Amino acid sequence: MSLENMVVALAQTAKKAARVLATVSTHTKNQALLAAAQRLRDQTEVLLAANAQDVARGKDNGLSAALLDRLTLDQARIHAMATGLEIMVDLPDPVEETVATWKRPNGLEISQVRVPLGVVGIIYESRPNVTADAAGLCLKAGNAVVLKGGSEAFATNSAIVDILAHAFAEAGLPDGAVQLVRSTDRQAVTFLLQQDRCIDVIIPRGGEELIRAVTRESAIPVIQHFSGLCHTYVDAAADIEKARQVCLNAKAQRPWVCNAMENLLVHEAVASRFLPDFVARLEQEGVEVRGCDQTRQIVPQVGVATEADWQTEYLDKILSVKVVGSLEEAMDFIHANGSGLADCIVSEDYSHVRRFLREVDSATVYANASTRFTDGFEFGFGAEVGISTNRLHARGPMGLRELTTYKYVVYGDGQIRV
Amino acid sequence: MSLENMVVALAQTAKKAARVLATVSTHTKNQALLAAAQRLRDQTEVLLAANAQDVARGKDNGLSAALLDRLTLDQARIHAMATGLEIMVDLPDPVEETVATWKRPNGLEISQVRVPLGVVGIIYESRPNVTADAAGLCLKAGNAVVLKGGSEAFATNSAIVDILAHAFAEAGLPDGAVQLVRSTDRQAVTFLLQQDRCIDVIIPRGGEELIRAVTRESAIPVIQHFSGLCHTYVDAAADIEKARQVCLNAKAQRPWVCNAMENLLVHEAVASRFLPDFVARLEQEGVEVRGCDQTRQIVPQVGVATEADWQTEYLDKILSVKVVGSLEEAMDFIHANGSGLADCIVSEDYSHVRRFLREVDSATVYANASTRFTDGFEFGFGAEVGISTNRLHARGPMGLRELTTYKYVVYGDGQIRV
Repeated sequence: MSLENMVVALAQTAKKAARVLATVSTHTKNQALLAAAQRLRDQTEVLLAANAQDVARGKDNGLSAALLDRLTLDQARIHAMATGLEIMVDLPDPVEETVATWKRPNGLEISQVRVPLGVVGIIYESRPNVTADAAGLCLKAGNAVVLKGGSEAFATNSAIVDILAHAFAEAGLPDGAVQLVRSTDRQAVTFLLQQDRCIDVIIPRGGEELIRAVTRESAIPVIQHFSGLCHTYVDAAADIEKARQVCLNAKAQRPWVCNAMENLLVHEAVASRFLPDFVARLEQEGVEVRGCDQTRQIVPQVGVATEADWQTEYLDKILSVKVVGSLEEAMDFIHANGSGLADCIVSEDYSHVRRFLREVDSATVYANASTRFTDGFEFGFGAEVGISTNRLHARGPMGLRELTTYKYVVYGDGQIRV
Repeated sequence: MSLENMVVALAQTAKKAARVLATVSTHTKNQALLAAAQRLRDQTEVLLAANAQDVARGKDNGLSAALLDRLTLDQARIHAMATGLEIMVDLPDPVEETVATWKRPNGLEISQVRVPLGVVGIIYESRPNVTADAAGLCLKAGNAVVLKGGSEAFATNSAIVDILAHAFAEAGLPDGAVQLVRSTDRQAVTFLLQQDRCIDVIIPRGGEELIRAVTRESAIPVIQHFSGLCHTYVDAAADIEKARQVCLNAKAQRPWVCNAMENLLVHEAVASRFLPDFVARLEQEGVEVRGCDQTRQIVPQVGVATEADWQTEYLDKILSVKVVGSLEEAMDFIHANGSGLADCIVSEDYSHVRRFLREVDSATVYANASTRFTDGFEFGFGAEVGISTNRLHARGPMGLRELTTYKYVVYGDGQIRV
């Protein structure tokens, strides 16, 4: 069978499975998740052996130490994968949840009801835990999933999907509930992205380059998870102590994630009170600070922030700092330079907070809290499929609900349109 | 200025306008709608003169009588356009509606709040009333709109947009709230579809060919409005009188619309009771019937339905009829041939109705009511942007809410992530 026919067959199998999965009971889906978790634990040796092949090939191919670490499985990581599936059992099943229901003057009763998206395609890089995690979340939301992992994790991903598919089948789920594109040929992705008759949505998980390539090529709608260029604005009316802890957390707790702060804006009225101590704290944390002219007048030891700095997402221990003259200037700056993921105002002024929250058009806007909370778990979704940077369908942290669509169910008694 | 630069400038102006429109008050938007309606009435002569140019050119170019009729404005049509805008004043403004709100254990208060999509691009054919209608709906939902109408209505659309833009500006809305791509060059659409940095969504309104071409070419997400291949299934347990009126309405009330029935499925247990009288009624209405073998045994006068008939959306006075042996066969048939827009079961059997409504995955599923109700007005949305055949973002009838996205607003007191 040619590669293209293989991908087509796989997509068609997924579509058939999706029709069945849409009405599978919550109980059956939960049993499948538990069975898969158990089998991952039972087959630890098989997984480690498969993973060893990938790691050996990765070393031969000169993979960096960081990538090798992401790729490598050990007992603890396999157990974490299994636990991840077990946790999904307790999440509420979004399928058949009624969003709204109303009655029309002619007696028709209309309900808007959540239903699965159908077939979800996930294209991702290295980390093999995505395989189990994505499959579990898609299943819980009643979707069939087609996975395409990175070639460096080919043996590991194959072993994981074998285990999941076996457990899902034993729990009574249809063939094709979870499938892996078993090819390391780049062409396989191209073929996959053309299966718009069978696959309903593509979620790429990985770096910006991967996401852009997938979006460009795809005939299927793509939910993008670009990174974030997040701001915190310390207002003239800020509580300085709150500002310090919120900003420190936003920058330094985990600098390499998308909801970490990249640009700090400080109102000139509080800059000389806030900055010296705060910059000292950052330096203790090993954060490099780059500032505008006014910032450098107050804390002369910091480097110079250039135009490029304002628009760079370092995902690193680097912070660009700008002193601004007004709330408006701060919002204009965020509008011009932000990525619309997460932005925060620190202020005790009611009207300033209200304006910021209304006027800054980001997926998540904060008053007096760290941007680091932009996360499905922190939002209370119990799971995170990713953090969407799309405006359509799903925006911001995605939980199980965002893996569903809806249909309208209409109950009548012979009504006709006049 | 080159055509490409013109389109780029227009998209950028729209994006700037969108930022302002997102926080314009409902009152101001309503004043703008009323002003636009008034100005359309006041400028009737100007509109008729512009329209006369298009109609004259259309005649020279050999436009069909049907297309000429769609293109032609008269006083009544202009008044209808104005009334359409006035009606939007009474629709609830979806912007800043709170979808959900909850509190986290750490004290964070999170609200999911509707906000405008941003910039909406509408690409449409002939009928000039779409110009005012689409602009009004986009504005009411806080969006800037970029319109690209058909070249045959160029002068008319230009005149309408001049009037709208003038009225909107007088009401205090920003420049670029409504704009028209003023070019009849096909290239203009190509350039427009590349403005993914400024335009958030494209809604094509027109035939299947237009929608396919736009989808293929667009770097911007597209909300498709394909037509429908709708089914009604008359179950063994159907109330025959209800079945008759529901089916007659679904087929014959307006056969040329997307929610009209194309395929009728009848359970064999009731076929000989239902079909003879029903087919006679259809024939009175001038509907041509094409049937399967079993159908033709019961009503021999009807034509033969071929494989192609089951998959053809006639949008005309033609109905394909098939006798089926079970609910399952009916659902499999709908799954294989339907377009997922609107499908109906006529039955008094509780479990059959329940299974049909759960298992048939269409945007709208009906028990004992005509598929013709798949419509934003009939659903009570007060407006209709269109009927989406997408699964993502908006599915089925689209009202003003579907022209919005959401953001999360988070209120804190200095919370940090641990």
